[in-house]
Amino acid sequence: MAERIDPWRAELPENYARLMEEFGISPFEEVLPDIPDPMSIMRRKIVFGHRDFRRVLERMLRGEDFAVMTGLMPSGKMHLGHKMVIDQLIWYQKMRGARIFLCVADLEAYSARGLSLAEARRIAIEEYLANYEALGLDLKGCRVYFQSEDEHVKRLAFLLSKKVTLSELRAIYGFTTESNLSSLFYPMIDVADILHPQLPEFCGPIPTVVPVGIDQDPHLRLARDMAGRFQKEFGFIPPSATYHKLLPGLIEEKMSSSKPESAIFLTDDDETIRRKIMNAFTGGRPTAAEQKREGGNPDICRVFDLYLYQLIPEDRRLLEVRETCRTGGIICGECKQMAIELLLDFLGGYRERYASALERVRSTFQEHV
Amino acid sequence: MAERIDPWRAELPENYARLMEEFGISPFEEVLPDIPDPMSIMRRKIVFGHRDFRRVLERMLRGEDFAVMTGLMPSGKMHLGHKMVIDQLIWYQKMRGARIFLCVADLEAYSARGLSLAEARRIAIEEYLANYEALGLDLKGCRVYFQSEDEHVKRLAFLLSKKVTLSELRAIYGFTTESNLSSLFYPMIDVADILHPQLPEFCGPIPTVVPVGIDQDPHLRLARDMAGRFQKEFGFIPPSATYHKLLPGLIEEKMSSSKPESAIFLTDDDETIRRKIMNAFTGGRPTAAEQKREGGNPDICRVFDLYLYQLIPEDRRLLEVRETCRTGGIICGECKQMAIELLLDFLGGYRERYASALERVRSTFQEHV
Repeated sequence: MAERIDPWRAELPENYARLMEEFGISPFEEVLPDIPDPMSIMRRKIVFGHRDFRRVLERMLRGEDFAVMTGLMPSGKMHLGHKMVIDQLIWYQKMRGARIFLCVADLEAYSARGLSLAEARRIAIEEYLANYEALGLDLKGCRVYFQSEDEHVKRLAFLLSKKVTLSELRAIYGFTTESNLSSLFYPMIDVADILHPQLPEFCGPIPTVVPVGIDQDPHLRLARDMAGRFQKEFGFIPPSATYHKLLPGLIEEKMSSSKPESAIFLTDDDETIRRKIMNAFTGGRPTAAEQKREGGNPDICRVFDLYLYQLIPEDRRLLEVRETCRTGGIICGECKQMAIELLLDFLGGYRERYASALERVRSTFQEHV
Repeated sequence: MAERIDPWRAELPENYARLMEEFGISPFEEVLPDIPDPMSIMRRKIVFGHRDFRRVLERMLRGEDFAVMTGLMPSGKMHLGHKMVIDQLIWYQKMRGARIFLCVADLEAYSARGLSLAEARRIAIEEYLANYEALGLDLKGCRVYFQSEDEHVKRLAFLLSKKVTLSELRAIYGFTTESNLSSLFYPMIDVADILHPQLPEFCGPIPTVVPVGIDQDPHLRLARDMAGRFQKEFGFIPPSATYHKLLPGLIEEKMSSSKPESAIFLTDDDETIRRKIMNAFTGGRPTAAEQKREGGNPDICRVFDLYLYQLIPEDRRLLEVRETCRTGGIICGECKQMAIELLLDFLGGYRERYASALERVRSTFQEHV
C-alpha cells in the first residue's frame, strides 16, 4: 500500500490502549514488518498487540518448530467472530515447523455453562470442529483433544495448583465463599492447556504462541507466571501471545452466540443471513438524499466491519469501498446487498464442505470416550 | 469364645464414643454376629464402627458383587499399622464377588508432602505395593491405579467440584487465603477415588465399603454427601465404611512413618526390630519383684498392643498372655522377647516373599507413565 493513511480504523479504542499499557502488551505493528505475507487482520491492526511474539517469529522465519495453542468452548454456535482464530490457525499451519494444539474446553462448558460432557461433545463436533475443517484447517495435522479426556492436561493442572494461592486467584478472577470449586479450579486447567505442549510427552520446552482476544489476557498472564514458577521442573518458556479485537455484533456491541440476531452463524441459511445483515447497524444518513450529499460513516458501520474483518481481504478493494461510502457513492441498502452477496458466495461452496467435514469429524471424535 | 468378658480393651476411648455419636457412626458389634469368620481385629473391636455396612454384608452373604475401595499415600515407609488395612483387603479378597480398588494417592503425596511424582512412584512400589503382595494380597486381582495417571478419577473429581462450595470445604477442612489450590482441590480427588468404582466404566452403582481409620471420616462423609448430589447423573449408592482404631506407637501415641523409633517397618532388619521392641512403653512395674507380686497392666502396654492388633490372632492364646501378665507370671523383658520372636518368625519367610514381590511389582508398575 502506497498511501500511509490509517484507513483501518487503526486508532485503538481508549480502553485497549489503557489495557495494553497497564498489562505490558506491545503493539503488533512493531513485529509486522518482519512477518512474511501477513494476514489481512494483521495488516489492519485487528491483531493489534502481542507479548514476546518475536520469539515465535524467529523460529518461524528459520523454519524451526514452534507451537500454536488455542481452544474452543463448545457452547452455543460458531459465528463469524470465532472464525478469526481459525483463520490464524490455517495461516500458521502453512508454516513449516508449526505444531498446532487445539483444545476442546468441554470442562469449561460444564463448569461455566452447565452442559453435560455429552452435550458439549455434540456441540464441539457439529458447531466447531466440522466448521474448522470445512474452513480449511487440517485437523489431522493438529493435536485436537477434549479436556475431559486428556490425561496430561489434568495432571499438569493439579501439579500447577500447588504453587498458586487462593488470594492470588481471587485477585485475578474474583470469587466468593459461595463460588463452586470447579470455577475456582478451572483456570488451572486453562493454564495447563496453554503450557502442556511444552511437556516432555509433546514438544518439550518450545516457543508457543496463543492467538487470543484481549478478554483472555488474564489466563495468559497467569500462564506466563506459572511457567516461571515451574521453570525448574519443566523448563517452560513463557508462552507468547497475540491479541485481536473482537468482531463487533451486527446490532449489539459484541458478536456473541447468545445474541443470534447480532451474530452470523456459519450454519445460518440464506434467508437468515439476508435478514440479519439487512437489520445491521450502519453509519448511514437518515435519508438516501442526505447520504448521497454528505456520504456515510464506515467507521461506525457494522457492515463495513464485516468487510474489514472478513469479507474483503484485499486492502485496495476495501479502501475503494470505504471511499465510495464516505463520498456518498453508495447507500446502505446497496452496500448491505453487496455484503450479503459476498457472504453467500463464500457460504455457497462452504456448505458442502461442511457436510462432508461433519462426517469425517464425527467418525473421528464421536465415540472417543 | 465362651466367656463374655471384654478382654479386648473394648471400651472405646471417650473421644471415639463422642465421635461416633456426633457423626452417626454405628457400633460394629451390631453387624458382627452376621459376619462369617470375622477377622481377629473385628472380634476385638479394633474395627469398632461402621456406616451402612449391612448393605455390603448382605451382598457378601449372597455371594454377589460389591466393591472394596482403599488407598495408600506413598510417603515414608510402610509400618505395621498400615498392614491392618491390607489384612482387611486380603480378607475381602477371599469373598466371591469382591471387586477391589486400590488407589496410589501420589497426587496427595505431591500436594501434602511435596514429593515429586517420580519419588512417590518409587515409594509406592518399594514400600507399599511390594509389601502388599508379599503380605498375600493378589494385586493382579485388584484394580491398582495411580491418581496422577487415572483419567476417570480426575475427570470425576472435576465434575464433582461443581457442586461443592468453598464455604463447605472450609467447614470440613479449613483453609486460609494463603492455602494453595491443590490442597483445596485434593478432597475432590479423594471423593472421586471413593466413588469411581460406581462409574459405568467400572461396576456401575454398587455397594462399596471403604475400610478406614477414624481420621479419614471427613472424606467419607463428603463422599456420601456428594453421592447424593450426583444421584441423578450417576446413580451413586452412598459408600459404606468401616472404621478401625489406629495401632498405637511403641513409644509415641500413634505409629507413624515420621517417628521411626515408635514404628515397626516391614523392611526393618532383625537388630532394629529387637531394639525398637526392647524400648517400647509397657504396663510393667518399676521392679521385677513388684511385677511378680502385683502383676502388669496389659491395658496400657504397647507390646500387648502388638499382640492384640497383629501378632496373636488366636483369641484364647491372647487371653492367656493377658492373664499371665496381670497375675505377674511374666516380666516385661521376657514378654518383649516373645514379641520379638513372634515378629521375627513372621518376617523370616516374609523377606523372601517381599524380594520376589518387589520384582513382579516393579515390572508391572515401574514404567507405567
